[in-house]
Amino acid sequence: MVKRSIPDIVIGRLPVYLRALNFLVAEARQITSSQELGDRLGISSAQIRKDLSHFGEFGKQGTGYDITFLHKQLSEILKVDRMWNVALVGAGNLGKAVADYPGFAGKGFNITVIFDNEPAKIGQVMGVNKVKVQPAEELAATIREHGIVVGIIATPAEFAPATARTMIDAGVKAILNYAPITIMVPAGVRVQYIDPVVGLQRMTYYLP
Amino acid sequence: MVKRSIPDIVIGRLPVYLRALNFLVAEARQITSSQELGDRLGISSAQIRKDLSHFGEFGKQGTGYDITFLHKQLSEILKVDRMWNVALVGAGNLGKAVADYPGFAGKGFNITVIFDNEPAKIGQVMGVNKVKVQPAEELAATIREHGIVVGIIATPAEFAPATARTMIDAGVKAILNYAPITIMVPAGVRVQYIDPVVGLQRMTYYLP
Repeated sequence: MVKRSIPDIVIGRLPVYLRALNFLVAEARQITSSQELGDRLGISSAQIRKDLSHFGEFGKQGTGYDITFLHKQLSEILKVDRMWNVALVGAGNLGKAVADYPGFAGKGFNITVIFDNEPAKIGQVMGVNKVKVQPAEELAATIREHGIVVGIIATPAEFAPATARTMIDAGVKAILNYAPITIMVPAGVRVQYIDPVVGLQRMTYYLP
Repeated sequence: MVKRSIPDIVIGRLPVYLRALNFLVAEARQITSSQELGDRLGISSAQIRKDLSHFGEFGKQGTGYDITFLHKQLSEILKVDRMWNVALVGAGNLGKAVADYPGFAGKGFNITVIFDNEPAKIGQVMGVNKVKVQPAEELAATIREHGIVVGIIATPAEFAPATARTMIDAGVKAILNYAPITIMVPAGVRVQYIDPVVGLQRMTYYLP
């Protein structure tokens, strides 16, 4: 059902739709519409219908979308109907906050290994999964051993590029980077950035 | 020069362009092209040219963009050629990491007040600006006193909606929310979400 070469910008909106659906599920709702989703997300209903049409027919004109069905379909398309083990590097305040983040539950991700290069951090147990922090030197071997392909970088900027290289050499294909630095990756590897500045600057445009 | 009713989705890409320009400035580069920016960002060069054309002429065909000039123009358009004082609520691991974030420097934002509702946190000094954490009850009065219009929520999910209401009642117009919960805001107020799940799910689509 999934067609090839869907624009990346469309793929990028699907997790946002999925998040909105999660909130609707939490509200025990059963049916929604592109209009309601659009109003919640600040995206036009036409855009939402067009994005979803890349993947088939999810709703009937006039009856809206079945929330559970659409949630299941989007989860499958995004491959988060399964659990991805995640390697987290950096166990400072940010890393701890990421490890403690309750929002990963049921969204397809599980932080199963955590690394730091500070001796004081090694052996600390942290996060919702009560993971013991390992020394950074064990990163490559552990990623290989567990076949991990998803990594999160929560180190200071100066350690981020080397951390990414180690992750990628060991088989990681998707990196979420919190460090304020661009990471160059080879073809076949993806990076997404968590950058509060981008979110803030997007809003100041509208301020008087 | 700025036209009215630029699509929000275009506005949302400008901070990403600005971030790429920041990295080019750091590399002491002087000229770039929509092609190079596009390659770095995974956005088509045509999209970048189209987005920028909403705001006027920034480059000449064949000669590329002057990085310093484009940086200055985008900063002005996004209104980050000035400094916005920011109120941060939540001084746990996440709040500390946000207060310590070195990436705000020179990007238009300055965390000048920090709040928490835990007595143990009050009076702690944290972040790049060495701000003393105030009790949450002082949030509204402090926002009003300083005329703050930008807020960051780094509280647990259960405190986020009430925090947002207090901020908005006191005059905040732009909220960056780290808590994994949707915040309803009245017209004229904007929310952006920092959600690692959205970044991760956007990449798993491409994983085998």
